[in-house]
Amino acid sequence: MITSPARQARPLLPLDEACCTPLLREPITASQAADLAGLLKALADPIRLRLVSMVAAHEGGEACVCELTEPLGLTQPTISHHLKILVSAGIFTRDKRGVWAYYALVPSALQSLAAVLSADR
Amino acid sequence: MITSPARQARPLLPLDEACCTPLLREPITASQAADLAGLLKALADPIRLRLVSMVAAHEGGEACVCELTEPLGLTQPTISHHLKILVSAGIFTRDKRGVWAYYALVPSALQSLAAVLSADR
Repeated sequence: MITSPARQARPLLPLDEACCTPLLREPITASQAADLAGLLKALADPIRLRLVSMVAAHEGGEACVCELTEPLGLTQPTISHHLKILVSAGIFTRDKRGVWAYYALVPSALQSLAAVLSADR
Repeated sequence: MITSPARQARPLLPLDEACCTPLLREPITASQAADLAGLLKALADPIRLRLVSMVAAHEGGEACVCELTEPLGLTQPTISHHLKILVSAGIFTRDKRGVWAYYALVPSALQSLAAVLSADR
């Protein structure tokens, strides 16, 4: 492993670095705990979990707000609020095309989180 | 505990059943999302993540409140509050021995959660 001689600033993102200190190998620092808690909080909501699940299973692996309101029975502003949190956390990407923005899962996001929680590392 | 033969209440535990519907295979139900969100919320706190990490790395894989207050710089009631949430979520076990209760990680808890978040299933 290459170690930088200078001190690395704490990254807000990428998620891979922010979240990937294995939880079970040795005590994590307060800073690592804060990063990981932020990511978990973004996911720890029933609506956001359903959004992640729905978008991942959607045709082409992406969906716009217009396709998500009806199955969830929620208003567009409510869905948009939750989507914004998922984008901020690095879990979703947002791609504006024409009138609508399309949301897709960042492939490595949940995988990285799963690796952090796993005892195998 | 009284169990009705007619209608089974939705299980609070075991964790394996509550959390193990893969998130990315098909849209999860509202009920599955609520279960999973509850588990993630129990983890989504910097103090609780540090507790999980510290207890897992502790000698013998268990620790009492008395061993956790100093490294975290928090009072015993505060630590006990967080430990209680982790026990309720099925992440920690609690074993009272003499004056102290000893807490240990439920081996399968985080592994099950990692499996749910993983795209491999």
